[in-house]
Amino acid sequence: MPIANTPPAPYYAVIFTSVRTDVEDGYAAMSDAMVASAAAQPGFLGVESAREEVGITVSYWDSLEAIAAWKRDGAHLVAQKLGRDNWYTAYKTRICKVEHDYSFFAQA
Amino acid sequence: MPIANTPPAPYYAVIFTSVRTDVEDGYAAMSDAMVASAAAQPGFLGVESAREEVGITVSYWDSLEAIAAWKRDGAHLVAQKLGRDNWYTAYKTRICKVEHDYSFFAQA
Repeated sequence: MPIANTPPAPYYAVIFTSVRTDVEDGYAAMSDAMVASAAAQPGFLGVESAREEVGITVSYWDSLEAIAAWKRDGAHLVAQKLGRDNWYTAYKTRICKVEHDYSFFAQA
Repeated sequence: MPIANTPPAPYYAVIFTSVRTDVEDGYAAMSDAMVASAAAQPGFLGVESAREEVGITVSYWDSLEAIAAWKRDGAHLVAQKLGRDNWYTAYKTRICKVEHDYSFFAQA
């Protein structure tokens, strides 16, 4: 999962920061399924993810409405409940407007 | 580095997503120094970081002015230049307004 190739700002970001339990059962499969499902939603622009002591997943969207629709998606609601019951000791979700951005790519 | 204990929204986030070169020389020490230096800036609220295929570091700030001041901090400018010359093949920096947030903490 490389750096997301988002369009010119403004657009929206959801920063999901989490701490895992030691329960592995079903987590990786659900995580992969949720990324695939998010990517199929209207308004999805990209996603970036990494985990060490905390996991940080940032998904990018074209509107707050797209984010709200994804939050109440049926399969996603099931995943959220399983996450609270099994996989996460804590998480924080931040809904953001990306006001501007800039990039660097090294010359080959 | 746990989940950042940020105040009620609104506040600001800088999402720094990067891909590393294989150059280790000086990187870890500079990375630690920059986190410590950011944390000492006026308006700093917290930071979260993780790296796998990409690294994601999200720093939180009380204003766009605080972010602008940190971007032009002298030691940070040196680190930015060393980063482009040595440590990163690519990065993207996104300046965001956190419009709202919510948290989950498992019951003990």
